[in-house]
Amino acid sequence: MSGAPPFSRIAIIGLGLIGSSIARAAGQAWEGLTVTGHDASAPVRARAAELGFCAHVADTVEEAVRDAELVILAVPVGATADVACAVAPALAKDAIVSDVGSSKAGPAAALAEALPGHVIVPAHPVAGTERSGPDAGFASLFRGRWCILTPEAGTDAAAIEKVAAFWAGLGANIEIMDARHHDLVLAVTSHLPHLIAYTIVGTASDLEEVTESEVIKYSAGGFRDFTRIAASDPVMWRDVFLSNREAVLEMLQRFSEDLSQLQRAIRWGDGDALQALFTRTRAVRQSIVDSGQDDAAPDFGRRH
Amino acid sequence: MSGAPPFSRIAIIGLGLIGSSIARAAGQAWEGLTVTGHDASAPVRARAAELGFCAHVADTVEEAVRDAELVILAVPVGATADVACAVAPALAKDAIVSDVGSSKAGPAAALAEALPGHVIVPAHPVAGTERSGPDAGFASLFRGRWCILTPEAGTDAAAIEKVAAFWAGLGANIEIMDARHHDLVLAVTSHLPHLIAYTIVGTASDLEEVTESEVIKYSAGGFRDFTRIAASDPVMWRDVFLSNREAVLEMLQRFSEDLSQLQRAIRWGDGDALQALFTRTRAVRQSIVDSGQDDAAPDFGRRH
Repeated sequence: MSGAPPFSRIAIIGLGLIGSSIARAAGQAWEGLTVTGHDASAPVRARAAELGFCAHVADTVEEAVRDAELVILAVPVGATADVACAVAPALAKDAIVSDVGSSKAGPAAALAEALPGHVIVPAHPVAGTERSGPDAGFASLFRGRWCILTPEAGTDAAAIEKVAAFWAGLGANIEIMDARHHDLVLAVTSHLPHLIAYTIVGTASDLEEVTESEVIKYSAGGFRDFTRIAASDPVMWRDVFLSNREAVLEMLQRFSEDLSQLQRAIRWGDGDALQALFTRTRAVRQSIVDSGQDDAAPDFGRRH
Repeated sequence: MSGAPPFSRIAIIGLGLIGSSIARAAGQAWEGLTVTGHDASAPVRARAAELGFCAHVADTVEEAVRDAELVILAVPVGATADVACAVAPALAKDAIVSDVGSSKAGPAAALAEALPGHVIVPAHPVAGTERSGPDAGFASLFRGRWCILTPEAGTDAAAIEKVAAFWAGLGANIEIMDARHHDLVLAVTSHLPHLIAYTIVGTASDLEEVTESEVIKYSAGGFRDFTRIAASDPVMWRDVFLSNREAVLEMLQRFSEDLSQLQRAIRWGDGDALQALFTRTRAVRQSIVDSGQDDAAPDFGRRH
């Protein structure tokens, strides 16, 4: 229990990993909060009703959002505009609308266009796993992770405060940031890593001289680490790359330049350059562990 | 206990993560096996003696290998030739020599040149963590992992059998492979992933628009996964890239081509191409989990 809830009724549209985790975490945080859920997929709605993490799973978007004080869209960012349009006619006049998209400038523009006159407080909880769907969610997903809010300048301060209090109640640390800056930061800390992981897993699968069975057998040499994030939801990630195109391409360009430099060092046998980089990167890991953003246990704490 | 040990006296040269793990695992596997250790670094020798995972820590290579039936070099691959030359005069006539290098063709050639007349059975246990040094080792490191032996054609079959039995006793699965093929397979399952991880961690540290503190705070979006292997031993990895140069450059070339293709798909907004790749890569993760080469728990089983 985190005291009085900042909202008494919320609606979550999209009941996958993130939406269902919000519902579970909110249910644990506040007894006095009623969560109504909806998902476009009938089987997901049925499963969510079985799992029981929402007070009610509504059959339509309109029914779900009626009377909600906070409406959270937890859908792939490419679906933001359509879902916002569907939500619009049924929204309470003073409802706050938020989302959880991994890119922010694009979805925020879509929300503003579809919902003129509503207070919009976009959010991005920087948390997740490689699993998808309502069974994959869990209440502690956001604990100790950062949730970035990207309201436009001039957004009602009380509304921002309430959305921040909501996420803090789920265990998240709150940061407020400009949407464009968010998209640049996340391009490097999240989008580029996913893009690279997807690529290398594809490259390894397509080799002729090395069989897929060999790739799998000897994956403990490092490759398996990349397969985890390359197992993330395909539609969600397709939308992220299309929606944050410019920042992703910018970061990709820098990465490619750095990779070329390393390639040249290997070709020319420049061991000093390699060792200097490899020594520098070791310190970054330590900082991440020290800041509580990863497990201090070796090998991510995998069982041996 | 795994029955009678295949050797009664072994020597391990190099008492870091791998060497000290072999000593610990062998000590657990067979009571009747005596392990003598040596490390070029005096502080490492002192610490190893304190930790007590060897029956004896010798002050010199010569002393360590005297009377050993199996000598394992667990040193960075770039040091193989020098250490083999130091070992040569003190080796028992029928001693078998092995190593644990992550590349095989180069070190095997160095061993053959330095040790004419000796039986050489190169080995590569595909296991490790991002930690280094004698404190980082543990007995179960090789359990359920693959150990690849790459003896040259014509190597004494009984010697290969004994080295295989040794690794099997430490819990490893054994594969025998041509050294060149090994180097190609590991270039994709281990060396390329490390190279890419080192690169992206370097890229992220060098940005002007995004601070290092932001990179660390929001690393749970995916980036932190890469920092683990980018925290691996700098000297060991410098040597791997220099020693397996051709295969690494070949795999890097393919990766770069695939990355360019993905870059183009993003630039042109080709969502279908992105989704098709992302769907395909998801299956590879499942195969790795199914084969027991990674944890089935989401997020590597990290604590939430």
